[in-house]
Amino acid sequence: MSAIPEDFITKTTTLSEEVTRPFPNSRKIYLQGSRDDLRVPMREISQSPTLTNNDREINPPIYVYDTSGPYTDPDASIDLLKGLPDVRSAWIAERDDTEQLAGPSSTYGQQRQSDAELETLRFEHIRAPRKAKAGKNVSQMHYARQGVITPEMEYVAIRETQKLDELRLDPEYQKLLKQHPGENFGANLPEQITPEFVRSEIASGRAIIPANINHPELEPMIIGRNFIVKVNTNIGNSAVSSSIEEEVEKMVWSARWGGDTLMDLSTGKNIHETREWILRNSPMPIGTVPIYQALEKVDGKSEDLTWEMFRDTLIEQAEQGVDYFTIHAGVRLAYVPLTAERLTGIVSRGGSIMAKWCLAHHEESFLYTHFEEICEIMKAYDVAFSLGDGLRPGCLADANDAAQFGELETLGELTKIAWEHDVQVMIEGPGHVPMQMVKENMEKELEDCFEAPFYTLGPLTTDIAPAYDHITSAIGAAQIGWYGTAMLCYVTQKEHLGLPNKDDVREGIITYKLAAHAADLAKGLPGAQLRDNALSKARFEFRWEDQFNLSLDPELAREYHDETMPAQAHKVAHFCSMCGPHFCSMKISQDVRDYAASKGLADIAVAVEEGMKEKAEEFKQQGEIYSEV
Amino acid sequence: MSAIPEDFITKTTTLSEEVTRPFPNSRKIYLQGSRDDLRVPMREISQSPTLTNNDREINPPIYVYDTSGPYTDPDASIDLLKGLPDVRSAWIAERDDTEQLAGPSSTYGQQRQSDAELETLRFEHIRAPRKAKAGKNVSQMHYARQGVITPEMEYVAIRETQKLDELRLDPEYQKLLKQHPGENFGANLPEQITPEFVRSEIASGRAIIPANINHPELEPMIIGRNFIVKVNTNIGNSAVSSSIEEEVEKMVWSARWGGDTLMDLSTGKNIHETREWILRNSPMPIGTVPIYQALEKVDGKSEDLTWEMFRDTLIEQAEQGVDYFTIHAGVRLAYVPLTAERLTGIVSRGGSIMAKWCLAHHEESFLYTHFEEICEIMKAYDVAFSLGDGLRPGCLADANDAAQFGELETLGELTKIAWEHDVQVMIEGPGHVPMQMVKENMEKELEDCFEAPFYTLGPLTTDIAPAYDHITSAIGAAQIGWYGTAMLCYVTQKEHLGLPNKDDVREGIITYKLAAHAADLAKGLPGAQLRDNALSKARFEFRWEDQFNLSLDPELAREYHDETMPAQAHKVAHFCSMCGPHFCSMKISQDVRDYAASKGLADIAVAVEEGMKEKAEEFKQQGEIYSEV
Repeated sequence: MSAIPEDFITKTTTLSEEVTRPFPNSRKIYLQGSRDDLRVPMREISQSPTLTNNDREINPPIYVYDTSGPYTDPDASIDLLKGLPDVRSAWIAERDDTEQLAGPSSTYGQQRQSDAELETLRFEHIRAPRKAKAGKNVSQMHYARQGVITPEMEYVAIRETQKLDELRLDPEYQKLLKQHPGENFGANLPEQITPEFVRSEIASGRAIIPANINHPELEPMIIGRNFIVKVNTNIGNSAVSSSIEEEVEKMVWSARWGGDTLMDLSTGKNIHETREWILRNSPMPIGTVPIYQALEKVDGKSEDLTWEMFRDTLIEQAEQGVDYFTIHAGVRLAYVPLTAERLTGIVSRGGSIMAKWCLAHHEESFLYTHFEEICEIMKAYDVAFSLGDGLRPGCLADANDAAQFGELETLGELTKIAWEHDVQVMIEGPGHVPMQMVKENMEKELEDCFEAPFYTLGPLTTDIAPAYDHITSAIGAAQIGWYGTAMLCYVTQKEHLGLPNKDDVREGIITYKLAAHAADLAKGLPGAQLRDNALSKARFEFRWEDQFNLSLDPELAREYHDETMPAQAHKVAHFCSMCGPHFCSMKISQDVRDYAASKGLADIAVAVEEGMKEKAEEFKQQGEIYSEV
Repeated sequence: MSAIPEDFITKTTTLSEEVTRPFPNSRKIYLQGSRDDLRVPMREISQSPTLTNNDREINPPIYVYDTSGPYTDPDASIDLLKGLPDVRSAWIAERDDTEQLAGPSSTYGQQRQSDAELETLRFEHIRAPRKAKAGKNVSQMHYARQGVITPEMEYVAIRETQKLDELRLDPEYQKLLKQHPGENFGANLPEQITPEFVRSEIASGRAIIPANINHPELEPMIIGRNFIVKVNTNIGNSAVSSSIEEEVEKMVWSARWGGDTLMDLSTGKNIHETREWILRNSPMPIGTVPIYQALEKVDGKSEDLTWEMFRDTLIEQAEQGVDYFTIHAGVRLAYVPLTAERLTGIVSRGGSIMAKWCLAHHEESFLYTHFEEICEIMKAYDVAFSLGDGLRPGCLADANDAAQFGELETLGELTKIAWEHDVQVMIEGPGHVPMQMVKENMEKELEDCFEAPFYTLGPLTTDIAPAYDHITSAIGAAQIGWYGTAMLCYVTQKEHLGLPNKDDVREGIITYKLAAHAADLAKGLPGAQLRDNALSKARFEFRWEDQFNLSLDPELAREYHDETMPAQAHKVAHFCSMCGPHFCSMKISQDVRDYAASKGLADIAVAVEEGMKEKAEEFKQQGEIYSEV
């Protein structure tokens, strides 16, 4: 994207309609917290009533977690030039442990700000950065360990609960709330997520709220295995393709479809300015891999990287508001040769950069040797660690090997050090792993890293399906999410082949949302099945519109349906193109139900319903009189 | 598809080029069996050499299971009017236990054959059907139990082995053959698949070879949990859309992308003629649900169905050559009311038809009461049972309930009866099941149905993603395949929404092939990882063409790659659009390898390679001298 389009500023002030239009039959609502400025967004999907034999059954609205930010709120005025409204500044200010700086304190940040040539590119309303006052620690973990419940903690508690406590008392939701018990591998899923529970999870290190004090636009969210499984999305230009404006629109697009966090992996030009635009307009936490930018600064020569310039990069990005940093501090010199005989060596970009540095200097990386200094920076802005798995396997053959697990142990040691500084930590995981070896990854992570949240890329469960790696990896992602992974890094169908376009991003995110949801169901997260039940009820009752609206991708579901069933009349009809009007199992099934009810046979079903399996057995025995074989 | 296009015959003689073109760098080969007319097809994918520092490493060809039939063989002359070449007639004739009939013995078959109006539609070269001689049983299970190894058994033994025994002795394959041990849940995966092993699996009922004596065009394949996990695809017109010619092309399309069997689920007009076209041109076993056609014959009134006309339909289809029948004989009267309080009642079409019949007549279905007579028909043509799960759950809420598991127990009783007749059986399974409840399905099936092969539809692991149900179900399919399911029925993205088009079919099949392969890897099927390893090696070495060619969908992989990397020069370059030329982890990784080798550090890797973890530990300890934190 070497050339900057001249109409850049103009273009980004107007997002395309497809990125911002509200979801059908949906309304943005805000749940009020304990203070006026604590309002938690949620999406309410209303349903049509069920019409049966002159009867009319109300179908209650369904509430779903909403990552889309103000973009889907018709009442919000969006101005990309000004950025999103401020959610957290008052909370941060009230804590009285930070100070506003005069300007960027990083050398690079100062250079970019004073470069007149960047004027046309630059976000106009850059705030002067905030930083912890001398001796203060502003991390959510620090507050949690002091026993303080921050507004951020209350916010995520409300957000995770999704009105569940209220719905439980509402008779209209009784049937929809039915859920199978989960199998949760030692997780500690609470019936009710209270602010105090959130605090204790953060204090223990089992969860994090990535929330840089310089990203007040953020709508707080939590990553931990006792909460909803989250999905990270990636964007980023590279030297070959993509542009700033595309990246901003992609960010909004990612938020729309359910991305919980977003990593800006740009490696091309002007990544400082791109990042500013993204941060000022992002309701999601933003993560980066600072070593990518550091490498740009030394023209791609990894051996020229130094601690000083890396440190400057960390401060530069922390003062812009990046919420978490991927740091590949676990790539130790002794592990590097362990990868030499691998089938695919080192496939992590950050990992390979650091490995090359280690070998060139024949010493441990500055990420490892200066780890405590990095912690000092992290806690002054509340940037969370995402400890990178630089030695993750790039193919099945290399899965769970000595290099990978050696690094994981080191990540555990580093976690302990970070926690001594009350700095929040999550641990990155693989990669390419066959299904039978996925569980070992989770178990080792929990043990070696003391239950710090695991954040995995897939894993891909086979190597033979490029162009379908969103699916090869969704299989592993659902599985490892079930075992306890807190956040899944999405993979698109372009993985291994090229950069994803807008459609790929959407498909990748929905794929990961469904995998994450499958994991929530499997763990038995309270209330997780409510939306499934509502959608299935709508499906059974031929409420097509409700079926679309309740789905993860209402627009595509409708589009597919209308392809083979175009007539408006059919859209409300009690059949579909799959079986035709005279051959509908759903319709026949309803007849069965009516028949059973009229004959009183429903008694049996009631017996089963009440868990009296014995009674059902009895009926079954009676059924034997019909047996003739 | 009410109107038959006049140009139907002309059209179907020429398949479109995209359906038949050979795969890139691939060659159809035939492995010779013990007799001249036993030639097993396989696809050989050749690779380019690896070029490193003036060295040239040969990359050996990779052999893959090939379901595409003669269509991808440039030497084969395809004439849809005449049908495929005969593979099995000599084998069948030699057994001398069948006789050629004068014409169809079913009333309906006779009617259709003598109907002059169908002339333009009818397949021209219909053979007179064969049938077992009086008192003879021509099922593969019967032969197996007599200790006979049929050519079909030898054929599948060669097909399953995929030259593995030969490759094991070839030094060029040493690295590619490395594979992680599986976790196989009590399956009995042999190191070597011999014809005798196939025979014993079929004799025990743990596997089936669906191979009607009236489908001699068939290339035999095996379904059982000690073999490669198979994928079934579906096609079928309905009253609303689709036509015969589309169905034939779809069949070839399904074979191309890896469909192992195909179910013709047509419910519209002219299904008899459609089926004849499909069978005569299909290298795959064809399954049907005969009750669908029977229902057409009574104008959609399920209560008018009778044993006599159903029996006639079975004979009609058996004499055309259908290889397996889905029979919903487990829908017993007493189970029907158990579904009344379900969230989505009965969602299986066959199940709901039979349930309605049972209630209307207040007696057990004729499928159940006449089960032994059905067995008599099955063994006279060697049609295998696919015992239908008419009461499978249609949503998560209904998973693993009393109706579903009650029916499963009945399917087990019926399996025993079928086996008394030496009739081959597989068992159909769900459906919609959350991940934590998938295993119970497999365990119960193995126990209740005495290890008869399980054949499942997904299962879908969440209900909230219509338009993505190929993925919600691939997650469950990979999982249940790992646990022991022998065949996975594919689901497309149009599931619940409409009929799939050609692209949907392709995407659905590839999705299921990758899920089945993930299951093979997880079970530890010998040699399964070879293709993964070869593709990963190609990826690491930037052999882009080899990476595409080794993938499940070479065409799409190339297309995606070329989208963001269009220049020809880049296609052979050692970088890609994801990271750009200066930022390639693969390249850096190679540098690391060179460096490590030059410094002798590769010793460590060698130590690990040889499993001497202790030695690696030693090196790691030495690494501690660099520690400074």
